[in-house]
Amino acid sequence: MSLIEDLLSGKKVALSRAISIVENREEGYVSILKQIYPHLGHSHVIGFTGPPGVGKSSLISSIAEKYLLQGLKVGIIAIDPTSPFSGGAVLGDRIRMESLKDSSNLFIRSMASRGGKGGLSKRTLDVIRLMDAFKMDKILVETVGVGQGDVEIINIVDTSIVVLSPNLGDDIQTMKAGILEIGDIFVVNKIDLTGGEEAVVYLLNMIKIGDYKEKKWVPLVIGTSTFNKVGIEDLISGIETHKKNMKENKNEDKNKKILLQDVSNIMDEYLLDKIQNILKNDPSAKILMDKVYNKEIDPYTASEQLLNKFYKIFE
Amino acid sequence: MSLIEDLLSGKKVALSRAISIVENREEGYVSILKQIYPHLGHSHVIGFTGPPGVGKSSLISSIAEKYLLQGLKVGIIAIDPTSPFSGGAVLGDRIRMESLKDSSNLFIRSMASRGGKGGLSKRTLDVIRLMDAFKMDKILVETVGVGQGDVEIINIVDTSIVVLSPNLGDDIQTMKAGILEIGDIFVVNKIDLTGGEEAVVYLLNMIKIGDYKEKKWVPLVIGTSTFNKVGIEDLISGIETHKKNMKENKNEDKNKKILLQDVSNIMDEYLLDKIQNILKNDPSAKILMDKVYNKEIDPYTASEQLLNKFYKIFE
Repeated sequence: MSLIEDLLSGKKVALSRAISIVENREEGYVSILKQIYPHLGHSHVIGFTGPPGVGKSSLISSIAEKYLLQGLKVGIIAIDPTSPFSGGAVLGDRIRMESLKDSSNLFIRSMASRGGKGGLSKRTLDVIRLMDAFKMDKILVETVGVGQGDVEIINIVDTSIVVLSPNLGDDIQTMKAGILEIGDIFVVNKIDLTGGEEAVVYLLNMIKIGDYKEKKWVPLVIGTSTFNKVGIEDLISGIETHKKNMKENKNEDKNKKILLQDVSNIMDEYLLDKIQNILKNDPSAKILMDKVYNKEIDPYTASEQLLNKFYKIFE
Repeated sequence: MSLIEDLLSGKKVALSRAISIVENREEGYVSILKQIYPHLGHSHVIGFTGPPGVGKSSLISSIAEKYLLQGLKVGIIAIDPTSPFSGGAVLGDRIRMESLKDSSNLFIRSMASRGGKGGLSKRTLDVIRLMDAFKMDKILVETVGVGQGDVEIINIVDTSIVVLSPNLGDDIQTMKAGILEIGDIFVVNKIDLTGGEEAVVYLLNMIKIGDYKEKKWVPLVIGTSTFNKVGIEDLISGIETHKKNMKENKNEDKNKKILLQDVSNIMDEYLLDKIQNILKNDPSAKILMDKVYNKEIDPYTASEQLLNKFYKIFE
């Protein structure tokens, strides 16, 4: 399995190939994920969640740049389809990104947000693992944070950064409830715009009245401006503080929950494959589906009959 | 089962209760969906897809108003969480909606877009069926059309209306590829704004070069303005033309595909329930999960062992 060896020894082309195989569920993907599993645990995974337009991509670029200067290996995973990392983009950002791409210590990958087996958050977890096996020091995950998928993605990162703009009300409205619960660090980007400082104060007050007694971490609030290079160092040191705290208070529960969800997703994916197979190829399934179409039987009774036939599931 | 009888005889309170039971997967939900199945087939389901801000809700209100004046029973399902039907809203729209709500022939329901078993498009199909059993004449479904879920929802409506603004480029960018393939009717709303007529011409040209030879319907393009009450009658007659065409060219394939997907979703939901149960309660699953946590075994091998133990699935 030289692909695995190449991946583990840090060959970018192997990482790229492995990600494609795993993301597209090509033959051999399970074997890859099985083989890398014992090698995981190196990377620090940092999520950047926030509505479109707050400058997540620029922020990630700025931070990636700093990490690269420190000699770290950096992976970027863009889940936001409007991200410049995904190809769509503001021109200035793209130029900056292009200059980053030359670094041999950087690897950027955007996820197809539509379709695909296994679900977006499962596939993102898989790609994180491949980058982890590649021994990335930092994996920066950019996500939109609207819709269920993205909220799940937040659960699989080590440090969760919520990026907002001074336009706080609109941002929170766009991202819906729950956004204030998922941040380890809140960033008010474009801090120099009108309302920037007020947004910071507002968030600090929200945190003050929040209930963090039970928790071992009180969220930080940091103002940044990628344009004026304000706050980037603060953010980087905030991220390290969180990482240190995370190591000291090893979150066994959270990690077990991620694995339980992962096994549940895997079992579901296996079973879904079997189901699709039965529905496509089994003659009795075809007869049953005709009956459903003709309203001789309802879809639930049909499903129960098929599950009983193949898995004796309702006995 | 007086709930079913009440639902079938058109009692709103029964519809409301049945939807809650089904949406939340409360006990008895399968029985409800089984019992209504033979009664389905009355409603004409019309989907309105488009990015936020194009005025879908106002358009739906205007059309619902006309239908109500015709004495029709109208159901509205809002899947867009930013929709005024869902509670969030522009003030003017809300007032209009409030006046609609007084009609005894109207029933509005918004879907929880996050979490929930069965997936959003499956639950939407369930709610459509409940409204169909209630003998709604028209069911208007409002959806955002970004993300996979919504594209699936489009597949379950009879007539799919894509609502855009004169800001066509941005709209299509927001909604991503595929948006031009899913419309039976394209509406350029706010047609009186700059670029409105050009947007109509652009869409007509797109359709002209599109390949509709194989299909029995060439999409319509209609300019509307809910504010100035322009084009609403045209849209309503366009919808009826599509409905008539649909009846003449009964789309057996499409309907069978919807049912196949439905049975697949139901089987998956049943199996997922079983999986969660096993993972939560089975002692051998707990031992296995500890091994996964300690990296003695990978999540895929663990999943295969569990599936083999319970369903002999890899034999």
